[in-house]
Amino acid sequence: MGEALACKDAIYAFSKENKPVKSVASGSTIKIETYDCFQNQIRSNDTEINSINWDKINPATGPIYVETAQPGDILSVKIEKMELKNEGVMATGPDLGVMGHRLEKFEAKMIPIRDGKAIFNERLQIPLNPMIGVIGVAPAGEPVSCGTPGEHGGNMDTKLITEGATLYFPVFAEGALFALGDLHAAMGDGEVGVSGIEIAGEVTVTLTVIKGQSLKHPVLISEEGVATIVSAATLDEAAKTSVEEMIDLLLPKTDLPLSQLTMLMSAVGQTQISQIVDPLVTARFFVPKYVLDAYDIKLFD
Amino acid sequence: MGEALACKDAIYAFSKENKPVKSVASGSTIKIETYDCFQNQIRSNDTEINSINWDKINPATGPIYVETAQPGDILSVKIEKMELKNEGVMATGPDLGVMGHRLEKFEAKMIPIRDGKAIFNERLQIPLNPMIGVIGVAPAGEPVSCGTPGEHGGNMDTKLITEGATLYFPVFAEGALFALGDLHAAMGDGEVGVSGIEIAGEVTVTLTVIKGQSLKHPVLISEEGVATIVSAATLDEAAKTSVEEMIDLLLPKTDLPLSQLTMLMSAVGQTQISQIVDPLVTARFFVPKYVLDAYDIKLFD
Repeated sequence: MGEALACKDAIYAFSKENKPVKSVASGSTIKIETYDCFQNQIRSNDTEINSINWDKINPATGPIYVETAQPGDILSVKIEKMELKNEGVMATGPDLGVMGHRLEKFEAKMIPIRDGKAIFNERLQIPLNPMIGVIGVAPAGEPVSCGTPGEHGGNMDTKLITEGATLYFPVFAEGALFALGDLHAAMGDGEVGVSGIEIAGEVTVTLTVIKGQSLKHPVLISEEGVATIVSAATLDEAAKTSVEEMIDLLLPKTDLPLSQLTMLMSAVGQTQISQIVDPLVTARFFVPKYVLDAYDIKLFD
Repeated sequence: MGEALACKDAIYAFSKENKPVKSVASGSTIKIETYDCFQNQIRSNDTEINSINWDKINPATGPIYVETAQPGDILSVKIEKMELKNEGVMATGPDLGVMGHRLEKFEAKMIPIRDGKAIFNERLQIPLNPMIGVIGVAPAGEPVSCGTPGEHGGNMDTKLITEGATLYFPVFAEGALFALGDLHAAMGDGEVGVSGIEIAGEVTVTLTVIKGQSLKHPVLISEEGVATIVSAATLDEAAKTSVEEMIDLLLPKTDLPLSQLTMLMSAVGQTQISQIVDPLVTARFFVPKYVLDAYDIKLFD
């Protein structure tokens, strides 16, 4: 597998114009080192907002050129392993997150990680749910800031994006130009204060090109089931589109007419919120594995 | 406990003008029989949309006058037990639910319940998650259809409203005028096709008036944690309001300043979707029990 790709090789926008920092064959497994979302700039609770370079937020390590990937293909990204540093950081403040209208000053808080828990304070230890906030490929059109999610992935801040899961992205540029960053030691759905427990670390992924199939939005498959992940201007739009994406994905794989599949989704499918604080919001529609198993559904080759 | 309140004593709108069908002392336990959300009108897969009386949808059995309840109090409703009939029904069609724009005709589907599973078809059995769709008290102002959710509860279609949970409602009318109906044998978050597995049954609840505290929106407490439940015109508004309601509920119960509590909620709190298909949509913010335990928080007396 060789050495990890270093976090200093970071982009701040996904773009088909970005120069790849590495090229790999389809099927390769690679280890990627990442900064935290503040580019490791916050090292104490006393960090002043003006001391932070806000142009260096949400770095994603890469991009990686995946050989043979062409626009119209799918890039599958199996998350083999996540390794986190032993200290995370949270931050919130005016105009940030759901409570930004009531907060008077920017505040940061260092959070030690010990024995699989995040030590919020002496009373409260938070169980970890390690996840990847920013992960994706170059978008079709203009560059997209790594702080923004979209059809190319990006800042989806989705809890399901964790060890063992496989993401499927539409490819828009030759080589796909994959990158990831913004790890969280823990985060709740919504990321309501604008940050999770932000942390640096390393992620090992296997990157594989899938030919002959295409996608409009990222899809995630795990041991638990499958999720369509959609980012939009409103939660209502993101949630509804994620449902329709799922139905269009499953419809050709079952013998159910649209009306019956819709009823089935109403009984077993879950509309879920990923984040409500990035410039666009992200929702997902989740279908549990026993439903796929009942119809012997294999979504991707 | 006496006989169950009969489902024929049903309302189709929550209103402070409704005449109570029963009066009980605070602290009483009562069994309530309910129609399904179609008032048991759909008995076969061939049911035509025009054969259904659409004025008789979402019946809620009641209202029950709870002695001593006054506007400004809280009514707590402990869901002691749910008993379901052995056949449910789903329906969807044009202009109903997320896929309504692509469906050509109204369709109903009877779904037998056997051995704790809903038999969707010969391939697929769905595990049950029994829950109550419509539950609430008379609203402050004009009558509100039982198909619509709001600050008074109503058609919240929230999966967490199930056996063992306790709901807390703001009281707007003398006696609270409590009613419930619209049971589901199973439903996914979102209720994307417009129905869950709709079913008639019986629910046993304990109704208790809490004096000296008040609420703006319904709150639910279970063995797993606490949720603020908010209905609004958009999911974005419902989700954000549910977060702020939770923070205002917890802030006086901890020693954390607003900024720190916001960070904590960002790490451990979950924005969740209840339903996206009723005239208003419903979201909730969930905080797990270990967080309340760490601060010895008791929300209601």
